[in-house]
Amino acid sequence: MFKITFKLSGGGDRTVLAAPSQNLLDVARSAGVSIDAPCGGSGNCGKCRVKLLEGELDCEKSRHIDREEYESGWRLACVSRVVGDAIIEIPAEATAYQDSLSSDFTARKRDFGGIIEMQKKLSEAGIGFLRAFKTIIVELDEPTLEDTMPDNERLSRYLYDKYKPDYVGIPFYVLKKLPEVLRENNFRIKCLIEHSRSRLTIFEVLPPDAEVFPCGIAIDIGTTSVSAVLVDLERGKMLSGVSAANQQIRYGADVIHRIVESTRPGGREALQRAVVQETINPIIRHMCKEAKVPPSAVCRLSVASNTTMNHLFAGVYADPIRTEPYVPAFFETRPIPAVMVGVEANNNARIIITPNIGSYVGGDITAGVLVTQMWDSPEMTLFVDLGTNGELVFGNSDFMMACACSAGPAFEGGEIICGMRAANGAIDEVKIDGETMEPTIKVIGDEGQKPMGICGSGLIDAISELYSCGIINSRGQFVREGRRIRRDKDGAARFILVDREETATGRDIFLTEVDIDNFIRAKAAIFSAIRTMLSSLSMDVSVIDRVIVAGGIGSGINIENAIKIGMLPNIPIEKYSYIGNSSLAGSYMSLMSREAYDQTLEIARGMTYLELSVVPGYMEEFVAACFIPHTDESLFPTSGE
Amino acid sequence: MFKITFKLSGGGDRTVLAAPSQNLLDVARSAGVSIDAPCGGSGNCGKCRVKLLEGELDCEKSRHIDREEYESGWRLACVSRVVGDAIIEIPAEATAYQDSLSSDFTARKRDFGGIIEMQKKLSEAGIGFLRAFKTIIVELDEPTLEDTMPDNERLSRYLYDKYKPDYVGIPFYVLKKLPEVLRENNFRIKCLIEHSRSRLTIFEVLPPDAEVFPCGIAIDIGTTSVSAVLVDLERGKMLSGVSAANQQIRYGADVIHRIVESTRPGGREALQRAVVQETINPIIRHMCKEAKVPPSAVCRLSVASNTTMNHLFAGVYADPIRTEPYVPAFFETRPIPAVMVGVEANNNARIIITPNIGSYVGGDITAGVLVTQMWDSPEMTLFVDLGTNGELVFGNSDFMMACACSAGPAFEGGEIICGMRAANGAIDEVKIDGETMEPTIKVIGDEGQKPMGICGSGLIDAISELYSCGIINSRGQFVREGRRIRRDKDGAARFILVDREETATGRDIFLTEVDIDNFIRAKAAIFSAIRTMLSSLSMDVSVIDRVIVAGGIGSGINIENAIKIGMLPNIPIEKYSYIGNSSLAGSYMSLMSREAYDQTLEIARGMTYLELSVVPGYMEEFVAACFIPHTDESLFPTSGE
Repeated sequence: MFKITFKLSGGGDRTVLAAPSQNLLDVARSAGVSIDAPCGGSGNCGKCRVKLLEGELDCEKSRHIDREEYESGWRLACVSRVVGDAIIEIPAEATAYQDSLSSDFTARKRDFGGIIEMQKKLSEAGIGFLRAFKTIIVELDEPTLEDTMPDNERLSRYLYDKYKPDYVGIPFYVLKKLPEVLRENNFRIKCLIEHSRSRLTIFEVLPPDAEVFPCGIAIDIGTTSVSAVLVDLERGKMLSGVSAANQQIRYGADVIHRIVESTRPGGREALQRAVVQETINPIIRHMCKEAKVPPSAVCRLSVASNTTMNHLFAGVYADPIRTEPYVPAFFETRPIPAVMVGVEANNNARIIITPNIGSYVGGDITAGVLVTQMWDSPEMTLFVDLGTNGELVFGNSDFMMACACSAGPAFEGGEIICGMRAANGAIDEVKIDGETMEPTIKVIGDEGQKPMGICGSGLIDAISELYSCGIINSRGQFVREGRRIRRDKDGAARFILVDREETATGRDIFLTEVDIDNFIRAKAAIFSAIRTMLSSLSMDVSVIDRVIVAGGIGSGINIENAIKIGMLPNIPIEKYSYIGNSSLAGSYMSLMSREAYDQTLEIARGMTYLELSVVPGYMEEFVAACFIPHTDESLFPTSGE
Repeated sequence: MFKITFKLSGGGDRTVLAAPSQNLLDVARSAGVSIDAPCGGSGNCGKCRVKLLEGELDCEKSRHIDREEYESGWRLACVSRVVGDAIIEIPAEATAYQDSLSSDFTARKRDFGGIIEMQKKLSEAGIGFLRAFKTIIVELDEPTLEDTMPDNERLSRYLYDKYKPDYVGIPFYVLKKLPEVLRENNFRIKCLIEHSRSRLTIFEVLPPDAEVFPCGIAIDIGTTSVSAVLVDLERGKMLSGVSAANQQIRYGADVIHRIVESTRPGGREALQRAVVQETINPIIRHMCKEAKVPPSAVCRLSVASNTTMNHLFAGVYADPIRTEPYVPAFFETRPIPAVMVGVEANNNARIIITPNIGSYVGGDITAGVLVTQMWDSPEMTLFVDLGTNGELVFGNSDFMMACACSAGPAFEGGEIICGMRAANGAIDEVKIDGETMEPTIKVIGDEGQKPMGICGSGLIDAISELYSCGIINSRGQFVREGRRIRRDKDGAARFILVDREETATGRDIFLTEVDIDNFIRAKAAIFSAIRTMLSSLSMDVSVIDRVIVAGGIGSGINIENAIKIGMLPNIPIEKYSYIGNSSLAGSYMSLMSREAYDQTLEIARGMTYLELSVVPGYMEEFVAACFIPHTDESLFPTSGE
């Protein structure tokens, strides 16, 4: 056995023993050191860069580490094997892709702002706000030798008398502690209750002065990021919001890798643990701490996510999703008890799962459609959700059709050497001077935050600007020379966005032709999916009244640039709007309103699902879209001005 | 630390390290060696006799160990302390009081025979037998690219189409494995379902050839013994029955000791573990093995027990039961999920708890009253349940009154030096020749079973015979001399029932004056309670049309003898009947019939509870009854013939 010491970027060391030729990524995991591996440890993504400070590693060559870097100790963890004692530095960017609890509620208005809007809309649309959860003070007569009614019956009698429900529910775990809580507080206690549809259920019994009230949590489980908000259910007030990396990411960047991992022995439990114990529970604890309430006050939860994510979250066998005929275990489920999934909340809390539409169009899209209100509008609406999977919904109150396309992880920074998700340190806006080729960037985070990488919205800008300035051609190849363009000895070029002196990592932030090609394929997937879906309805983009773009790929995307590069159809820009994380907003609506939840059932049941791969001509459409803006330039008459 | 080795009666050793002056009973427990301690380790009961083979113990003197025994190594474990290495022999009788899984179904007809009767009665009385549980074979269309309905919806659709329920319930744990079970069996599976009141719920999904069917378990949790039967719910067939000691017994013989133990830190969990993990789960595994079904086939359970027992079983805080004003946490509870109590059964199984009547008249009595059918009869009926607590119910279809009296553990062999519960090796019938004073005994168990002690029914016989033969007087003192009577140097006498040469333990089986006195107080508690309850109604024993005696104190008690000693009222013997373990029979009825369960709610709600201790004159009645048969001999005109 060899001794491997990891020096963490935040300070601190972790030392573990490792067997000869053990994979360094596995050694790090066994030491509890998280390292990004969105490609699943295949050496492809280059996110698991670590620095060898002392000792030796047996390491494969990688296009992600150049000679100079190799000599100064840089290695990819996933292709390194232990051959002796070693000391390894874990740089901050090795966990940038999955930084945990990255940002708090106020700092991330772009994620949570949509929800505040949503709350306004809910009341305007007359959708009932859930007022069923309440805090009440119960004052019981103390028992005497003449009145020996048991605690359970005594409390029920009081509630029947006072609130006149048809049914009083005192769950078993409440009954277990009721005698103690009553006697410690002289039979005067605080109860958290749900009182709706003539049922009154007690969620918690507490001392009368406990500062606790019933809360709810809405969650969006994305393949890459998990976002959540904590709400005071009694007053309808938002208390906290958090976004964090989905810790499943170490099992691969996309849903297919995750499903494959889940079918290994113990895999289903490991994947569930990663998203529940390692992602959602820390989020819940963080938000509850911020709002000064215990997790046991969380009486109701709502989850919106893609079909694979909600299967793995619930611990349901997901393998059939990825093999023909692509059949999931469920579209709809009844609310699942939080305790059965291991989510930290009240013992009686249930989790609503927004219903799925197809194997690759999940509850996150149902939630998004709910938010768009396209189901209630005569306007022909195109809803585009950008993420590792791109999903489209088209239609209005008469009909709706959905399809999914595999955009790959480029929108979330995957498969881009300097890519990262839209977290602190991500470049999310880029402008390039046509003459000097000097870029101007905007970085997510507090003032003075140095850039660490580039996220989806930054990529759209960068590539659009590179093209507009004539730095790259239609195929994404560099066609100008200058200080910002560097070529290695094979002639492969990169565009330096930020010099190493100005980055947080001390390494250049750049885009290569491979990066640009990966991105072009992502945008082509979206555009060709839109064209294919419309043509399957014998329509074209001229029928579109509005386009609603969603997805947490940055601080809002520059629609003009997205049109310029041929990602979105070339229709008047006024028809476009960007609504941020619509999955979280829809999850929030389902949490707060039974009518909204019922509407998600309607939406999912009424949706027509189009399997793109079986539509003739789809592949040709995709290939034709793999240019900037498109092989058919007539589709983008205003582009490239 | 010293090395203590226990040599077990069944063969085998256990060795553990013990601290100086550690209590030997605690050391034994830490080694996983069970030793009876019905008195809670206070040195009173003398059940924890062990034999010191090598080494030393620091041991208090005890009336239970005479000089000769002490010299040959006998010690009471509960008053012995470790002072060096030692080797200790654990004799069979040290666990006789709590022998586990003592008897199987067929060998214990007296316990389970009542249930077979019950099944007849159920159908005669037109009480509906629960036919809701069924095994069905489901054949689904395999999904194709044209029919991609998810598994959950596919199964629901099939069940709605075929069985036309209003509601199909597929619990979450079934959903989790459904995709695998469907695909491993080409979409042809076996389901265990409950289909009643237009609800269809799936309890289990299995391969089509699995030999599994829905089962139910009825349980009687007594303070001393736990009995249970396993039933095929589909065909209404009894499959197995088991009776075992309640492993809580090591925390004390009576409910008060148990409650006190449960209030210590971790005590509630320990008491629950003792009855669930160490008593009920082994019973379930044993019965399921015998019937060749997995515990996951157990879809429904029913529990009848006294109020303290059902609180401790459910893990509910029980302390208020034992302190004024004696208020339990519940009379009624909704069915409790088996998983929440830790009972091994189907994940969706619920446990019905027969409702309690008062703090000291529990669901076991409600179940017993159900069995007597006194609630449906004009006959004035007295129901007597003999156990550590004696409970009485008097009344008919117009009214019913219940009360409890503390008889102490004598009926179940406690506080009697050679007493034991009605298990293999217990003397359960005794006759004594008036001239020779030679006893004739009957022993529970297979032919050739040597006696180990005496149980409740044997004690009634023995004391009645000792009195009839003039061997003891009205106060229970020995007044004859002979070979069978032995006196120690203080003049204290004992009657030798069986010589040591003929016992399984190699020790005499005898009764002392202290034993007889303990028993007289037990029978006096019963008789005075009957008198007090009737006089509180301005009635006397002449109004009684029938007396129904229940309790697992032996193979049926000799009523004539019980009357002779003044335990039961002196009314014509034809009015008496003995129905065995009515708590188990009533638990079984509740399991099998919703009408029966509803009837238990009616019985408990309609019952008047009489707190004996507040009735004037009760103590005087008790003192007057502490004679054989009674100070007022006019109450027993036919006695002593």
